[in-house]
Amino acid sequence: MGGEEEAEQVQAFGWAATDPSGVLSPFHFSRRATGEKDVQFKVLYCGICHSDLHMLKNEWGTSIYPLVPGHEIVGLVTQVGNNVEKFKVGDRVGVGCMVGSCRNCYNCSNDLENYCPDFVLTYSAPANLVPTTTYGGYSDTMVCDEHFVVRIPDTIPMDAAAPLLCAGITVYSPIRYYGLDKAGMEVGVVGLGGLGHVAVKFLKAMGVRVTVVSTSHGKKAEAMERLGADSFLVSKDAEEMNAAVGKLDGIINTVSASHSLLPLIGLLKTNGKLILVGAPEKPHELPAFPLLMGRKIVGGSVIGGMKETQEMIDFAAKHNVTADIEVVPMDYVNTAVERLAKADVKYRFVLDVANTI
Amino acid sequence: MGGEEEAEQVQAFGWAATDPSGVLSPFHFSRRATGEKDVQFKVLYCGICHSDLHMLKNEWGTSIYPLVPGHEIVGLVTQVGNNVEKFKVGDRVGVGCMVGSCRNCYNCSNDLENYCPDFVLTYSAPANLVPTTTYGGYSDTMVCDEHFVVRIPDTIPMDAAAPLLCAGITVYSPIRYYGLDKAGMEVGVVGLGGLGHVAVKFLKAMGVRVTVVSTSHGKKAEAMERLGADSFLVSKDAEEMNAAVGKLDGIINTVSASHSLLPLIGLLKTNGKLILVGAPEKPHELPAFPLLMGRKIVGGSVIGGMKETQEMIDFAAKHNVTADIEVVPMDYVNTAVERLAKADVKYRFVLDVANTI
Repeated sequence: MGGEEEAEQVQAFGWAATDPSGVLSPFHFSRRATGEKDVQFKVLYCGICHSDLHMLKNEWGTSIYPLVPGHEIVGLVTQVGNNVEKFKVGDRVGVGCMVGSCRNCYNCSNDLENYCPDFVLTYSAPANLVPTTTYGGYSDTMVCDEHFVVRIPDTIPMDAAAPLLCAGITVYSPIRYYGLDKAGMEVGVVGLGGLGHVAVKFLKAMGVRVTVVSTSHGKKAEAMERLGADSFLVSKDAEEMNAAVGKLDGIINTVSASHSLLPLIGLLKTNGKLILVGAPEKPHELPAFPLLMGRKIVGGSVIGGMKETQEMIDFAAKHNVTADIEVVPMDYVNTAVERLAKADVKYRFVLDVANTI
Repeated sequence: MGGEEEAEQVQAFGWAATDPSGVLSPFHFSRRATGEKDVQFKVLYCGICHSDLHMLKNEWGTSIYPLVPGHEIVGLVTQVGNNVEKFKVGDRVGVGCMVGSCRNCYNCSNDLENYCPDFVLTYSAPANLVPTTTYGGYSDTMVCDEHFVVRIPDTIPMDAAAPLLCAGITVYSPIRYYGLDKAGMEVGVVGLGGLGHVAVKFLKAMGVRVTVVSTSHGKKAEAMERLGADSFLVSKDAEEMNAAVGKLDGIINTVSASHSLLPLIGLLKTNGKLILVGAPEKPHELPAFPLLMGRKIVGGSVIGGMKETQEMIDFAAKHNVTADIEVVPMDYVNTAVERLAKADVKYRFVLDVANTI
């Protein structure tokens, strides 16, 4: 960018939903001009996250239409602002769930931009936080402040890396923060979907022994033979669950459908930690006594800060952790969304944006 | 004790309830002979804990009658077994909520006898764990394995020390374990009763800034002027509570009546910790979203291990932390129980056992 030139908006093309039917169709729009600290990049791939489904249909009441979803975005840098320090044209980069934060608060000052009260969602950000609404990665071009851009190491495939920017950091961050990352520990993963299968891989890469807890007996072979889990529990099988009482140091619970926490708390050892990364619409029932009698906790976590997101992707590259994906063309997006709603994917759809838009 | 002598049971006299009416009356009984690792002591004082009320009336379904309550017991050693190492006749000692545990399990090996699955309650212990039922401190004489006896420092009054053995350790242990003990931290105490008022004193002694949260506006002067709390919130005052959102590093919640956790979770900063030491009969409602969005936890804790109980009483002696008590004679016990049920005490009744039994 020439410093004296008039900044020009960036023309972009993507797929958008225009109303709560959630049906996506081609959509021309503009992004802000690439600012002094901004990186512009060509989108190669974008993962389809389960939260995209909720946002497409305005199920959380915060959707702004036209809505271009996508917050698992990877691509190649095409332009950098004058004051960009970390990136140059041609770099492999990614953007996850957020593209801004206040940069001043206590959380921002401690690499926890994800807990900044003013953090800016990658798409459909509230109008009070940004001059124009934000659009996600189901599109050919992104513009983003370099602080919210991560470097994708050369050794990790771009398509299988994309889902790590949301699903990956969502499980990696609590594993680290709650100290469930020590070799030899026993950790449970509840729900074997987009988040759960990556959690199993991260934990195994850390030397942790993993128990997958699922409602579906059919996932046992998959969990143990292919993903390398050490054991498997069917949550509806009372006998299996009873036999496992008091065995786990912690649990990463990825389920956002309503379910009972009590049997999961029962699986924990003294000082055990049940960590929620999914939020059912209705409150959980939490009996106090089982927490007291084992000094157990129920905790939460949401994505991760930018420093930790870079750490996560570097760890993934070093330890060959990637998401299991089904790459689909852009015009398959509505079908993919329908299939994802039925959990008919192992485990993440990734849109082949650059080749098919 | 002579090693070859026939061990003789210890004759004791106390007050017992004989049925779920819970009315106490004088009661003669025997305790086990003072064994090789046992300490026998003359009871001087015994605190009346709120859990005694539940046990007297069999409200938890575990009461064994005749039932001699009392697990905040202090006294003077009158006899020691041949292999007792820590105590001698005349020592000031105390016994809290437990008098035994398996001594073998993972928890016992880590100074967490309180989380041993086989820990033995000071009174009304299940028959499968002990040869004869256990009797508490509303009585003139105790016999207890020295491992479950703590030394009461000379500098702390015996009567005001008694409640620390249950109420004190119940709040001290989670303050330490959950790291709410750092000078300058902001910590809330919910409920200003037997547990809460001691929690305020411990926290202040650690240099922590304390906010008392209570349903009753009438406790404000008491909390701030006499106990030294730094601020006070009426939990039912939505305006006050809103103004305090996001201010606290942690909360010790002593309330065992049903109440909503959501406003308390709202008071926490990012990474804040809401610790339950009371257990309402019905499960709490726990919405997941507020935990996720601030990486907050809800945790539990119950009393403390023996090593930590000794540490607690030593800390209390050093920092002049004692319970605020109303000392009453033994034959006042039924009235005291009635008044405690109405929260008509500041803050703990202590029976003057030795002088009035």
